[in-house]
Amino acid sequence: MNVEFINPFLSSLLNVLSTMAQTELKPGKPKVKKDEVACGDVSGLIGMVGPQTKGSFSITFDENLALTIMERMLGERPDSINEEVTDMVGEITNMVTGGAKNLLGEKGYDFNMATPIVVSGNGHTITHKSEGPKILIPFTSDAGNANIEVSFDKI
Amino acid sequence: MNVEFINPFLSSLLNVLSTMAQTELKPGKPKVKKDEVACGDVSGLIGMVGPQTKGSFSITFDENLALTIMERMLGERPDSINEEVTDMVGEITNMVTGGAKNLLGEKGYDFNMATPIVVSGNGHTITHKSEGPKILIPFTSDAGNANIEVSFDKI
Repeated sequence: MNVEFINPFLSSLLNVLSTMAQTELKPGKPKVKKDEVACGDVSGLIGMVGPQTKGSFSITFDENLALTIMERMLGERPDSINEEVTDMVGEITNMVTGGAKNLLGEKGYDFNMATPIVVSGNGHTITHKSEGPKILIPFTSDAGNANIEVSFDKI
Repeated sequence: MNVEFINPFLSSLLNVLSTMAQTELKPGKPKVKKDEVACGDVSGLIGMVGPQTKGSFSITFDENLALTIMERMLGERPDSINEEVTDMVGEITNMVTGGAKNLLGEKGYDFNMATPIVVSGNGHTITHKSEGPKILIPFTSDAGNANIEVSFDKI
């Protein structure tokens, strides 16, 4: 897997958050994840299956950033990570992966998306267990940090 | 989605754990999950995509049960949830879903599996964000609790 497969997720995420929540994320340097562990408070995860490959995508938010995105979308800030917040994280996961799917489909890499799963719990960590490399991009913003991770077998 | 789609995951899990780790899980009553939240310390998650449906599966373990399974498989007990434990949880997720895939395939319900993702973090919770019902089965054992959750759209 090379950077060509992570950029569609990156640009799709920037687009979704700036459009839906007027939030500008600043991407850091993509890393091939080895021992490094991304850590956050609420995460959206989704599986991807295509004829050439299969893989998984995750996006992890600090609690403050997730609550701020809700506030900017709905005008009201939840006190904590409740079901509305996990719904929103599931929806962002779907939209980001759907955007990346369109961009990758144009390059001839097709996949179908499973349904998203949302994890909440302070300081949880996520490990993608595919055979391919795991690429992680950290993001900073005015309201906290996020990171995405993508892994595909056989690309 | 009806119970016909959860039973293959249940029997596959019982089979995998008794074969690999001489651990007998005792299933509780399957529940259609509404407000109920399953909570655990290490979870394996996987996406499923088929021509008729898409969905997700998760299995969540108490820390003590995960460490005991490792001990029974390898003869040595890790001090905490380390990379070996998350690898094992990813592998169990693959094996349970693969077993269920075979059983459901015989009934004409085909799907392909994405790659597993493992979450660790004390007391995290998982929410499947599909349009269909979410069915949860709790399990007890001599070494702690586990639960599985399955959700499919459009079955």
